[in-house]
Amino acid sequence: MDTLEMIKHRISANKFDTSKSLSEDEIKDLVAYAAHAPSAFNIQHWRFVAVTKPEEKERLKAVAYNQQKVADAAVTFIVLGDLRGHEKLGEILQPFVASGNMPQGMADGWVQTTAQMYSNPQLARDEAIRGASLAAMTLMLAAEAKGLVSGPMIGFDPEGVKQAFGISDQYVPVMLLTVGYAAPGNWPRKPRLSVDEVMQFESGKDL
Amino acid sequence: MDTLEMIKHRISANKFDTSKSLSEDEIKDLVAYAAHAPSAFNIQHWRFVAVTKPEEKERLKAVAYNQQKVADAAVTFIVLGDLRGHEKLGEILQPFVASGNMPQGMADGWVQTTAQMYSNPQLARDEAIRGASLAAMTLMLAAEAKGLVSGPMIGFDPEGVKQAFGISDQYVPVMLLTVGYAAPGNWPRKPRLSVDEVMQFESGKDL
Repeated sequence: MDTLEMIKHRISANKFDTSKSLSEDEIKDLVAYAAHAPSAFNIQHWRFVAVTKPEEKERLKAVAYNQQKVADAAVTFIVLGDLRGHEKLGEILQPFVASGNMPQGMADGWVQTTAQMYSNPQLARDEAIRGASLAAMTLMLAAEAKGLVSGPMIGFDPEGVKQAFGISDQYVPVMLLTVGYAAPGNWPRKPRLSVDEVMQFESGKDL
Repeated sequence: MDTLEMIKHRISANKFDTSKSLSEDEIKDLVAYAAHAPSAFNIQHWRFVAVTKPEEKERLKAVAYNQQKVADAAVTFIVLGDLRGHEKLGEILQPFVASGNMPQGMADGWVQTTAQMYSNPQLARDEAIRGASLAAMTLMLAAEAKGLVSGPMIGFDPEGVKQAFGISDQYVPVMLLTVGYAAPGNWPRKPRLSVDEVMQFESGKDL
């Protein structure tokens, strides 16, 4: 199925085939695709905890309003945004400088600029959520291309998730993301607002 | 090119062919694909202002640190998140109730739940950014599938953009998104962190 058809075809799944699992390599491959998402300054704010073991999925379910899909999916990702992702930027850009694609002075400038920008906690949080969401959407479409289904979730206790999985305050939980094989009983695609209801040309006055 | 190849192939573009434009229908079609993104409760928090006229692009460029790509792209979208998107939820779910896919009582419950949830301003902002980002990533991949290139941008003055384009405080500017045909001179893909640097199994302790 081509990409445009796939975008129209995708549904958010609640029902997963509990008899089918994903290997560690298959899970890593999904994250490798997610990591191709774009990010401001190439900081790559996204981080993932892949929850696959039955007892760990039960612990996650307990801080996600006992939603069964967390346990039924082959993997449930805790998708995080790194509030201090910019601290790695010098290291991230180094190979791009070494390959002659970016002058060292520009890389140094980006490191300085982002240190200033993300010292603003609201900006750091906005960026963590934005970056992790771009990666999560990429992961969902990669999963779909591999014949899997996925379901993004915001119904969970962020502090509870952090405590249960040893996640520090450096990270903001952005969503849970279930991925696996579909079982029967999923909802059809939900109706969408029309393009004219969500877009205007040249002005936002009539939104 | 299949979806997985396309995800790996995509770059964020800075250089656009200024001789090529997109029709209104082509732009609406991109947004129609973006609107297939998932959203919590199907609220669809994303909104778009499509800036295409030369004089409007110049006004946008002026509140985006004079970055030339805003003017060079065939269209630059102002991607917004609706802080009060949930107020339309009853209306949004109505066709899904009418088609027998959702009981009226469940739809009513979602309307009540979301009214409570999004009365928290931080949650409303988080959700607006998350939803708009999921739609923006979908738009970028749809654009790629159509032979176009795109570039998400956070380098702009959000209040300046709102004022210049008549956008009310109901909306949070989430990013600018340039879309058009590539010109020579774009950067190659920037290097990514390895999967092991962005993902752990079962625990977030070693992130």
